[in-house]
Amino acid sequence: MTKASPISPTIPLDRDGIHHGFLKLPYSRDDSAWGAVMIPITVIRNGAGPTALLTGGNHGDEYEGLVSLFKLAGSLTPADVTGRVIILPAMNYPAFRNASRTSPIDAGNMNRSYPGKPDGTVTQKIADYVLRYLVPEADIVLDIHSGGKTLDFIPFAAAHVLPDKEQEARCVAAMKAFGAPYSMMMLELDAVGMFDTVVEEAGKTFVTTELGGGGSTTAERVAIADRGVRNVLIHAGILAGELEPAPNGTAMLDMPGDDCFVASEDVGLFEPCVDLGDMVKKGDLIARIYDVERTGTPPRDYHASRDGIISCRHFPGLIKMGDCLAVIAKVL
Amino acid sequence: MTKASPISPTIPLDRDGIHHGFLKLPYSRDDSAWGAVMIPITVIRNGAGPTALLTGGNHGDEYEGLVSLFKLAGSLTPADVTGRVIILPAMNYPAFRNASRTSPIDAGNMNRSYPGKPDGTVTQKIADYVLRYLVPEADIVLDIHSGGKTLDFIPFAAAHVLPDKEQEARCVAAMKAFGAPYSMMMLELDAVGMFDTVVEEAGKTFVTTELGGGGSTTAERVAIADRGVRNVLIHAGILAGELEPAPNGTAMLDMPGDDCFVASEDVGLFEPCVDLGDMVKKGDLIARIYDVERTGTPPRDYHASRDGIISCRHFPGLIKMGDCLAVIAKVL
Amino acid sequence: MTKASPISPTIPLDRDGIHHGFLKLPYSRDDSAWGAVMIPITVIRNGAGPTALLTGGNHGDEYEGLVSLFKLAGSLTPADVTGRVIILPAMNYPAFRNASRTSPIDAGNMNRSYPGKPDGTVTQKIADYVLRYLVPEADIVLDIHSGGKTLDFIPFAAAHVLPDKEQEARCVAAMKAFGAPYSMMMLELDAVGMFDTVVEEAGKTFVTTELGGGGSTTAERVAIADRGVRNVLIHAGILAGELEPAPNGTAMLDMPGDDCFVASEDVGLFEPCVDLGDMVKKGDLIARIYDVERTGTPPRDYHASRDGIISCRHFPGLIKMGDCLAVIAKVL
Amino acid sequence: MTKASPISPTIPLDRDGIHHGFLKLPYSRDDSAWGAVMIPITVIRNGAGPTALLTGGNHGDEYEGLVSLFKLAGSLTPADVTGRVIILPAMNYPAFRNASRTSPIDAGNMNRSYPGKPDGTVTQKIADYVLRYLVPEADIVLDIHSGGKTLDFIPFAAAHVLPDKEQEARCVAAMKAFGAPYSMMMLELDAVGMFDTVVEEAGKTFVTTELGGGGSTTAERVAIADRGVRNVLIHAGILAGELEPAPNGTAMLDMPGDDCFVASEDVGLFEPCVDLGDMVKKGDLIARIYDVERTGTPPRDYHASRDGIISCRHFPGLIKMGDCLAVIAKVL
Amino acid sequence: MTKASPISPTIPLDRDGIHHGFLKLPYSRDDSAWGAVMIPITVIRNGAGPTALLTGGNHGDEYEGLVSLFKLAGSLTPADVTGRVIILPAMNYPAFRNASRTSPIDAGNMNRSYPGKPDGTVTQKIADYVLRYLVPEADIVLDIHSGGKTLDFIPFAAAHVLPDKEQEARCVAAMKAFGAPYSMMMLELDAVGMFDTVVEEAGKTFVTTELGGGGSTTAERVAIADRGVRNVLIHAGILAGELEPAPNGTAMLDMPGDDCFVASEDVGLFEPCVDLGDMVKKGDLIARIYDVERTGTPPRDYHASRDGIISCRHFPGLIKMGDCLAVIAKVL
Amino acid sequence: MTKASPISPTIPLDRDGIHHGFLKLPYSRDDSAWGAVMIPITVIRNGAGPTALLTGGNHGDEYEGLVSLFKLAGSLTPADVTGRVIILPAMNYPAFRNASRTSPIDAGNMNRSYPGKPDGTVTQKIADYVLRYLVPEADIVLDIHSGGKTLDFIPFAAAHVLPDKEQEARCVAAMKAFGAPYSMMMLELDAVGMFDTVVEEAGKTFVTTELGGGGSTTAERVAIADRGVRNVLIHAGILAGELEPAPNGTAMLDMPGDDCFVASEDVGLFEPCVDLGDMVKKGDLIARIYDVERTGTPPRDYHASRDGIISCRHFPGLIKMGDCLAVIAKVL
Repeated sequence: MTKASPISPTIPLDRDGIHHGFLKLPYSRDDSAWGAVMIPITVIRNGAGPTALLTGGNHGDEYEGLVSLFKLAGSLTPADVTGRVIILPAMNYPAFRNASRTSPIDAGNMNRSYPGKPDGTVTQKIADYVLRYLVPEADIVLDIHSGGKTLDFIPFAAAHVLPDKEQEARCVAAMKAFGAPYSMMMLELDAVGMFDTVVEEAGKTFVTTELGGGGSTTAERVAIADRGVRNVLIHAGILAGELEPAPNGTAMLDMPGDDCFVASEDVGLFEPCVDLGDMVKKGDLIARIYDVERTGTPPRDYHASRDGIISCRHFPGLIKMGDCLAVIAKVL
Repeated sequence: MTKASPISPTIPLDRDGIHHGFLKLPYSRDDSAWGAVMIPITVIRNGAGPTALLTGGNHGDEYEGLVSLFKLAGSLTPADVTGRVIILPAMNYPAFRNASRTSPIDAGNMNRSYPGKPDGTVTQKIADYVLRYLVPEADIVLDIHSGGKTLDFIPFAAAHVLPDKEQEARCVAAMKAFGAPYSMMMLELDAVGMFDTVVEEAGKTFVTTELGGGGSTTAERVAIADRGVRNVLIHAGILAGELEPAPNGTAMLDMPGDDCFVASEDVGLFEPCVDLGDMVKKGDLIARIYDVERTGTPPRDYHASRDGIISCRHFPGLIKMGDCLAVIAKVL
Repeated sequence: MTKASPISPTIPLDRDGIHHGFLKLPYSRDDSAWGAVMIPITVIRNGAGPTALLTGGNHGDEYEGLVSLFKLAGSLTPADVTGRVIILPAMNYPAFRNASRTSPIDAGNMNRSYPGKPDGTVTQKIADYVLRYLVPEADIVLDIHSGGKTLDFIPFAAAHVLPDKEQEARCVAAMKAFGAPYSMMMLELDAVGMFDTVVEEAGKTFVTTELGGGGSTTAERVAIADRGVRNVLIHAGILAGELEPAPNGTAMLDMPGDDCFVASEDVGLFEPCVDLGDMVKKGDLIARIYDVERTGTPPRDYHASRDGIISCRHFPGLIKMGDCLAVIAKVL
Repeated sequence: MTKASPISPTIPLDRDGIHHGFLKLPYSRDDSAWGAVMIPITVIRNGAGPTALLTGGNHGDEYEGLVSLFKLAGSLTPADVTGRVIILPAMNYPAFRNASRTSPIDAGNMNRSYPGKPDGTVTQKIADYVLRYLVPEADIVLDIHSGGKTLDFIPFAAAHVLPDKEQEARCVAAMKAFGAPYSMMMLELDAVGMFDTVVEEAGKTFVTTELGGGGSTTAERVAIADRGVRNVLIHAGILAGELEPAPNGTAMLDMPGDDCFVASEDVGLFEPCVDLGDMVKKGDLIARIYDVERTGTPPRDYHASRDGIISCRHFPGLIKMGDCLAVIAKVL
Repeated sequence: MTKASPISPTIPLDRDGIHHGFLKLPYSRDDSAWGAVMIPITVIRNGAGPTALLTGGNHGDEYEGLVSLFKLAGSLTPADVTGRVIILPAMNYPAFRNASRTSPIDAGNMNRSYPGKPDGTVTQKIADYVLRYLVPEADIVLDIHSGGKTLDFIPFAAAHVLPDKEQEARCVAAMKAFGAPYSMMMLELDAVGMFDTVVEEAGKTFVTTELGGGGSTTAERVAIADRGVRNVLIHAGILAGELEPAPNGTAMLDMPGDDCFVASEDVGLFEPCVDLGDMVKKGDLIARIYDVERTGTPPRDYHASRDGIISCRHFPGLIKMGDCLAVIAKVL
Repeated sequence: MTKASPISPTIPLDRDGIHHGFLKLPYSRDDSAWGAVMIPITVIRNGAGPTALLTGGNHGDEYEGLVSLFKLAGSLTPADVTGRVIILPAMNYPAFRNASRTSPIDAGNMNRSYPGKPDGTVTQKIADYVLRYLVPEADIVLDIHSGGKTLDFIPFAAAHVLPDKEQEARCVAAMKAFGAPYSMMMLELDAVGMFDTVVEEAGKTFVTTELGGGGSTTAERVAIADRGVRNVLIHAGILAGELEPAPNGTAMLDMPGDDCFVASEDVGLFEPCVDLGDMVKKGDLIARIYDVERTGTPPRDYHASRDGIISCRHFPGLIKMGDCLAVIAKVL
């Protein structure tokens, strides 16, 4: 028998109106014997209708979703809505407060922690609650990612290849509705522990994104997130109005195999020789890595592993063994 | 009587040819009783002629100068040169290795540590050596900065308003030769401890820059640095060839007063509402800061303090009390 | 099949006389490849008779029990005793040495780690040993708690509502024998992982306490602990003599529901407006929390959630989201 | 020539009305290249009249002054005042935010940092600003201390024996006006670096206090601070009304020599055998220290070094070599 | 069904020639969202024949094996070999880079982590890969240990008493072939989680060693490792040539019981009174521990628990409760 | 005017008998508002006669002197002595307790902190006290060093070439009296801040040593220290008896120039190819450094810079840029 979650919401999840509160997770520790992690949540409901679950901060340093959903929670009104919007802008809240990918409490990577455990770590308890208490309420789930402090992406929404083609079609339709500059069909090679997987296994319409990175955001990228969130809610029948497409339309991309990824086998100072969105041919020089111990030694050159578009790149000025240096996607 | 520096170079500074080595700074510590900080340096000399001192890594997380100068040290040859080029790509070397603005050894901000001390901290010892042993050798000094992990800049070269107008004219000419997309005349309000100040006081032609930021760099920004370094060396008569201007020319900017700076008086999640290079009018909304403790509270709005161009902005997704939120420069 | 514990006592547990030694827990780590955690234990035995197990330091920063039991181990003699007293003054010994609630080795909260595991973390190994090797030896178990660094309590002994009413009556009798200024009947809402629970499930007579807090103790509170320990041993028939009641008698308290707890939903500077032991009416102002970023903003007021006595309060000068601000008990 | 302070107030210090703002101290560091420390300040002025400077948080973990002054800044109005009140509730603001005695930035103990330096550490810059820009504005200065996390005091106001007897009389009068339960005449043996000293050297009427400790506060102790602040402002002619004495009057104390202090020469678990406010005779047992490595070794006893009242005691449950164990004051 | 390992080798394990590469273990973390741990591996193969698996760095601060195997990987050629040599010089690679016994990522002691888990910690993932993918390939396994930073050993190779006497004889023969100055027959009392155990359970010929310690190595001890590795490969039929015995032959040792171990029950400054390799009689003084708090207190003396040779000793100058002080082996 | 030291001894320095106590250094800090550093000291006096000052723990991880002097303080009696012995076994006491070369409080390297400051850091305050209050009392000063955790030495006593040849002769005589296996004449190139220098400038007979290293000690090396201390006290006329020479006599060494030092210009895994005490010829291979990132790259070879004896070597298994790899002394 599965245990009940120790998490309790401080607001009703099913009542009309707008409710700002917390998921309260009791957490006894050295600096608070009877303390709690208080995870902000907003529920906006107006009568019968579909439910959308909007999540950001699955990784705590991915800011497009965090900004867009904190903003939405403060600006959307019940009058705008048919049905219900559940906004969880900072799913891994301890990571968000720490400006880090993973939780400073337990080093938990939220997107490797599903389905979670009610008696596990703090990260696992949050995952368990979201999966068992919030996801079942939802008709559509939008989880907004970016690259975080160590990666940067061209902005895209994404759907997965799924065994249930009807569900896949629903997801693809929602991804297209999002209206990002790029849309990506993803075949996850290792989907264990991901939020995506458990939501899709629950049969939900699911959209994810990569909208930027570097542990920062820009006005331009926030606008993409804002538009995408609104479009998804319109697509779901929760907001009224017309879908607003990306100004220059959406390019379709594909990551067909492992050779999309270029990884570093060196430690050093990173010189990018191409930028995000550049088109490359197999064999093009894409980066150099310099010895940081001394001058005068030749850098190590890295070349494109295939033709395509630079859709992701290493962000920090220094690079380590095994770091993802770039992802080259196929343009459809 | 001033003490001799404890730093010694492992290569000759005045001999023809190319020499890669170190400034060796003895540093006794817990993990090395008789250890040293080894700061990479390259000297390229070909007969009589002017000397340029090229420095990067004054702050350890500003990558355009670091990449461009490590690259130059490995590609420039004595045959290319008339006179001498001294390349110190990572002036605050411990900070560079730590990917941080300041030194992890002594928290030293190199650009607040001049003129340094031969018996001071590690950072002060480096400053003292550079000022007393390298700067006097130079006819022209180029120090390449960027915004580091917490700021981002539009790319510009800069010169200061100086009491000696002949010297100022030399500096401005070198700044223009650099050929960045923007050029900035700066009136430093607090120049105490800066490398700029001591070099200018020594009567040298001096150029500084801000070329990017965020603790990262891009192919585009490295190209600006590479071109600028080469242009300055041509301008100094050390390299042959023609100056290569910025593709779209150089816009002249000015930071006339304190009202260029917009500072945060809030802690929270940072939403930029304009981007680098955007033109704003006084009173325009430029950013919002959201409460990170809870949803549903109105954000704090920040407005442009004057007309101008967004030439610098806060980079991380979270912002603190007193952080520089944006700099609005006047376009001349 | 359950594994044997890796822990071994360095003294006999069942021999007459007084024996001071250790529970030795092998612990291989960076600073000692073949090291051990050595947990002090004293066993005092004099012929046949009942066995009392006295434990302190279940949380490492709760000092009444620690002081009283270290003192007892050095002053009690076999001649005083009929039967056996097992004294484990610092159950979570690594936490005690670190002056923290939880273990610095594994962040283990001992009172959420039962029943433990013989091949788990250090904290789990201790729990497993205590439960499988010491508790079965005992007729009565006294576990002395206080509030630790982050909470402060009025001094009380406590018993739980149990399904077995005969056992409950034994526990209540022992609680009353302890003779604290207050006695509390507790209905634990979440008893998972607690020492209390496993000891009660083993059918033992069990008394727990909260005697103070703040990471300190006073002569007055140590005296309450000393008297209580002696009374419990007399009550158990191990020491001779008369029970010594609290000078002003014992007041009976009850924590009938969740509304006893007042939790903080703010971060800031904490002003208590009532003190421990004060009687309050529902709606009384009990605390204010001030913004620490700036002066001039109104504090957030907290009010009593019910009538009763302030039996527990937040201790540190700063308070965080979710911290327990106060507990208001019902006076019977 | 002394340098100007880099600190600038964001509010006018000399204009009628109430002004909440900051002392802004530019502070460039790894996590904010162009950042600042923002120290809250409130100025309340109503026409001509005397100026009082009220300071708290000289040490960051002493809460009576912090709470009382944050509260006062939000409740006092210009209409209440004749002249001016300058409230600096958290003088060592970085220490206050860190809940520590000293600054986490530079380990600066503010009360050992006077007169400060305009180009020194952050702590020294604050000291320099307060001394050169705020103290000269004041007729009377009240600096509210407590024991912090490691000491606890009976509540007293204090004045120093001064060479200028007229000034001493002014200070003693203000100390008595404060109306604490105890008043202490102090002969500081080592006054180097203290705020007290530089303010007194500037000829000001100065009152200091010790009102509690342990890194916490209580409603009772905050009430003593509130009453004392109000009394001092009445005494200075800034507030109208009658002085409110301590309910049981004020006992006069003296610390005549080094033998008031009892220091630990052991490491271990601390058992206080007397409490704050207890009267002791020379030779009385006042504390025991237990070996934390093992049970069964006799504790080390500590005895009163003189007759008097326990006016200060060690707070944490563990004690170290050299820690102040108790202060025994002479009751006059 | 057991999951596949997430680890993949970047080189073929079964192709002729010499291949230097990595075991690539994907590891998502704050400083690299899509990063990896890259564990160096070398495979040298020349046609059919036996396979030897040579491992070092099971603990990251044991240098004889690390040096000898990094050296071998760079000097052995396919022409030298009949069959195959798999060299994994730094099995717990994160620990090796951290110069520590256990992994800085997860505190994993590799030699307590077998059989590992494909979805466990980084240390468990490595253990799982080695056991399921490398060990089955091997006919003989040599794992080279030393004492690390906290212990020092006389140099010996070792074999275990095994239930399968034919296997035990194979292991003893290989141990003798190694040719260390000492050879030890070990009866492991607690073999849970050890690499030794799982390899022996897989029926392999297995040799382990202790060759030195102190977190250092010497030319003399590296020579013992080099000779031993070569001898084992000759013994296995992979290298040609004659076995080279230890210059003074090999002394046979035994650790017959728990009384071989002398453990510290004190904290303090450690004075060894005998050295490694010294012969002692039961009762001989072997060490003293001094109080570090003060001079003038008598040290605590430690005596030999049995006759024998000092085969292991505590290394650091300070010693803690429970540390292994010495091991006294029986000379056969 | 120089300030008085804040340090006070808890024992008399000039009274007959044996006195164990502390140098008490007041030290206010976060974990003890009114705390102190308590530095153990022993003074043994018996009537008129010379005074010897014996110091260890100048660096906190050099154990021969620490062990020998803690032992001496507990075993020497007034009856043994003519005159006075002042024993300061752990001069940089905070470093000793931290098992580190430098102080964990202020990173102070005691042997670079002389002459110290009475109002400086903790390390500077100790230096100031020793120089101004203890050294003037002494006729002879013996300061016992070893290599600490990062270096290892052959055991030698040393004297410096001094301008005053009479003083030099006294020092050399005392060095020879010490009776170490080696004796070294040292010409310090940079003697700024050293204890040696200030003691010699005070005209005292001074002996220093290097007796071992690696952060450990052995029975053999402690015996050298014990014998040397006793010999120096006999030589000084404080103890009676005959000098005991080293069993194999003392070899005289010299470090004639900078070419004695071999420093690392690589980072990696360190293989010593010769050991302490080995004789080498210029050009001999003495060490190799291996790349720790990958197998299969050739190591970097280091060769002897001159003929001589390996008198010092790098100790840890890993080596860094600039570390002292070896010292080759000239055998006279």
